[in-house]
Amino acid sequence: MAKRNATAAIIGAGDYIGAEIAKKFAAEGFTIFAGRRNGDKLAPLVDEVQAAGGKIFARSLDARKEEEITAFLNDADKEAPLEVCIFNVGANVNFPILDTTERVFRKVWEMACYSGFLAGREAARLMLPRGQGNIFFTGATASLRGGRGYAAFASAKFGLRAVAQAMARELGPKNIHVAHLIIDSGVNTEWVRQRRLEALGPDALNDPDALMPPASVANAYWSLYAQPRSAWTFEMEIRPFKETW
Amino acid sequence: MAKRNATAAIIGAGDYIGAEIAKKFAAEGFTIFAGRRNGDKLAPLVDEVQAAGGKIFARSLDARKEEEITAFLNDADKEAPLEVCIFNVGANVNFPILDTTERVFRKVWEMACYSGFLAGREAARLMLPRGQGNIFFTGATASLRGGRGYAAFASAKFGLRAVAQAMARELGPKNIHVAHLIIDSGVNTEWVRQRRLEALGPDALNDPDALMPPASVANAYWSLYAQPRSAWTFEMEIRPFKETW
Amino acid sequence: MAKRNATAAIIGAGDYIGAEIAKKFAAEGFTIFAGRRNGDKLAPLVDEVQAAGGKIFARSLDARKEEEITAFLNDADKEAPLEVCIFNVGANVNFPILDTTERVFRKVWEMACYSGFLAGREAARLMLPRGQGNIFFTGATASLRGGRGYAAFASAKFGLRAVAQAMARELGPKNIHVAHLIIDSGVNTEWVRQRRLEALGPDALNDPDALMPPASVANAYWSLYAQPRSAWTFEMEIRPFKETW
Amino acid sequence: MAKRNATAAIIGAGDYIGAEIAKKFAAEGFTIFAGRRNGDKLAPLVDEVQAAGGKIFARSLDARKEEEITAFLNDADKEAPLEVCIFNVGANVNFPILDTTERVFRKVWEMACYSGFLAGREAARLMLPRGQGNIFFTGATASLRGGRGYAAFASAKFGLRAVAQAMARELGPKNIHVAHLIIDSGVNTEWVRQRRLEALGPDALNDPDALMPPASVANAYWSLYAQPRSAWTFEMEIRPFKETW
Repeated sequence: MAKRNATAAIIGAGDYIGAEIAKKFAAEGFTIFAGRRNGDKLAPLVDEVQAAGGKIFARSLDARKEEEITAFLNDADKEAPLEVCIFNVGANVNFPILDTTERVFRKVWEMACYSGFLAGREAARLMLPRGQGNIFFTGATASLRGGRGYAAFASAKFGLRAVAQAMARELGPKNIHVAHLIIDSGVNTEWVRQRRLEALGPDALNDPDALMPPASVANAYWSLYAQPRSAWTFEMEIRPFKETW
Repeated sequence: MAKRNATAAIIGAGDYIGAEIAKKFAAEGFTIFAGRRNGDKLAPLVDEVQAAGGKIFARSLDARKEEEITAFLNDADKEAPLEVCIFNVGANVNFPILDTTERVFRKVWEMACYSGFLAGREAARLMLPRGQGNIFFTGATASLRGGRGYAAFASAKFGLRAVAQAMARELGPKNIHVAHLIIDSGVNTEWVRQRRLEALGPDALNDPDALMPPASVANAYWSLYAQPRSAWTFEMEIRPFKETW
Repeated sequence: MAKRNATAAIIGAGDYIGAEIAKKFAAEGFTIFAGRRNGDKLAPLVDEVQAAGGKIFARSLDARKEEEITAFLNDADKEAPLEVCIFNVGANVNFPILDTTERVFRKVWEMACYSGFLAGREAARLMLPRGQGNIFFTGATASLRGGRGYAAFASAKFGLRAVAQAMARELGPKNIHVAHLIIDSGVNTEWVRQRRLEALGPDALNDPDALMPPASVANAYWSLYAQPRSAWTFEMEIRPFKETW
Repeated sequence: MAKRNATAAIIGAGDYIGAEIAKKFAAEGFTIFAGRRNGDKLAPLVDEVQAAGGKIFARSLDARKEEEITAFLNDADKEAPLEVCIFNVGANVNFPILDTTERVFRKVWEMACYSGFLAGREAARLMLPRGQGNIFFTGATASLRGGRGYAAFASAKFGLRAVAQAMARELGPKNIHVAHLIIDSGVNTEWVRQRRLEALGPDALNDPDALMPPASVANAYWSLYAQPRSAWTFEMEIRPFKETW
């Protein structure tokens, strides 16, 4: 693998999407800086990336803390210039409006929107002086639609999309690619499978094509990264071919 | 004026839009409950509504405080059943992304989104047992578009729109009309006139048709209130005829 | 009823929505010019409007014929100045893509989009010299969403919406109100009831609140007409409170 | 170059975008079937593709004629199974509404929407029995926005987008990838440069980054083709990094 003198930071490096992004960009030669709430859980990812010859740093990171985000990205940038920052923190919850506590509403926003703002802004601060970079945000169906029960989650995802739009309009002309990738599907994670099992019964898990593989999200991010600046995409959605919408 | 046994609560009863909503609904016989940060500033509105034969209560209200929202709406509901709740708190700011502090981002969200969630939820709590009500939210151009410099404001307005959508989908079938009114224009306020003066020079104030009169917003809200439930609107935009868009 | 020296033209004056629009605007004092493919079918509407003291002219009109549209609107304008033109021709069909013949695709477009362009343009031609007027278009769920089987219908409705947008942007500053009313629901017509009966069984017709009464559409159009030019709406959707969306 | 037993048909193979798509897919081993109004103009493209070792067939094609579209795609499919069909016919015009003749409105629709429906449907007819394929449509800013003067063009582009949506929803689950690529920018063609020169003066042509290179559109189409079916995109926009939007 050809090494690059460039770092890709992943904020919200969970076991599925975040891990696949890490593996993909590591395989392409990036130094990976991976952050999640409990950094200890990143050990298997670190092993896997290193076994494949990749370079990766794992950190505990509370993305809702400005100083932690700043330190995380600054540290990433010290290993090699920060070229890619992907914000991937999720917080999918569903409650009737009367049962949506102020604590839930605030926490979901802090995790899925406010953290994204901090990450995007601090990445931009590092990238602007060099006049290049890529800042990507993970969106969801709830980025476009405030469904029943999704006051908290959709509000945060709508808000994150606005941050991405405002940043894209300001930073695009400065050669920083800001994009918003909308995953309009369930992703094949243990949590999603469990929810489908409970909601739809065992047959819901029989169709291997019903859920999106996390690696496909990573590939979509790579395709955004690979775009020439003469034809950048701000927003695209991805869904499995069987998905109805 | 025929009195109604019904209260209209206005959260964010500023000197312009909020005040006009108060006057309009008071003139239609509603008891008005008007809240703004500094309730003392409501004195002229109270005088005007009362002089016209209307009934109005003015309160200091920090809409970002759950217990204040709850108390405000409960008090409103005690005067007469809460039939209308209009959330009208604004927080229009524009900063380059690097100059958007975490304090600004959080405060704008608390004012323009989180407060709206609290207001909507607490209004719904009072309305649901009676099986009727109207919950309206004031939107802006930034509810639909994250323009350059609007990471904070658009993020909050996008988020508020999502709250409104989720509430509309849940509460509509329960006979509560939730609507989102998008003002796609400058409104004729001292603050907007000053900004236009600074940005465009004195000529910018010569055209009496360039800005939306606050009373027109109040009328738009009244038209939403007057809709039969067989044909409710969730979202509509309003703009002056001269506005380009 | 106070008479106005003004005509409202309704193109696509069917038994339901079109007829209700005619009755509403007649009751408000407008001279009505109603056109539909087979003008003989307008006889009951003419009787009803006249019995209520209104003034109405009924014409056979193939809205896909430029010369017929022009003559229809010119004749309307001779009775009294054309102040309102409402385009309400529908053409709802659903076919799998392979079964969508070129004839169907073209005919649906001619009825639902091309006719609307002709109507809007010819109305504008009469209104522009007087510097005022109202041109409204009936939209549908398919104006915003190309659902499965709706290649023909949604394509025409999307296209009509674009016509309305382009006209609104050009004509608004010239004091002509162009609006697009989206009916996001089935309307209570014999045809819709029959389709629901076939699709869902007899129980589907038990709920009187499930379908939109045509008169509610007429009222929505009236509310658009009644807007002051300081706060015009281009687009709003209406749906019954029970509708899920 | 590794040859594939697969054909890519390009309908609207103009000198710029269409030609670049042909070159890209030829370079990836596809047999190319290229059609445009005057097939003689395809001679330079044929020479270039063949000189590079590619396989290409050029045809005169009036895409508004059902029988021509059918014959073109059937012939394409006889060379090798039709795996990709890209509809790329443009028809950008701008007229004030009163100057938009019925002939222009109809012709623009026939070129930019109706032809696309025919192409998409006939491609689907060939692909469905084999249970795979890719049908892509070129969109524009006017696919999403009916700007002033764009009643004809935007109406056609909105309509084409609806066709693409309806086809994607029906055909996606049948393993046919339908996508709509929105070019939100001027493309670097002689015609666009001339228009900019006239509108903005010579300086408008000084910035090499202001217009999108046609080859970038071809690459975007390739990235859509390369997506795994577990994560298909229906819609994405592309624009140069300097574009304001």
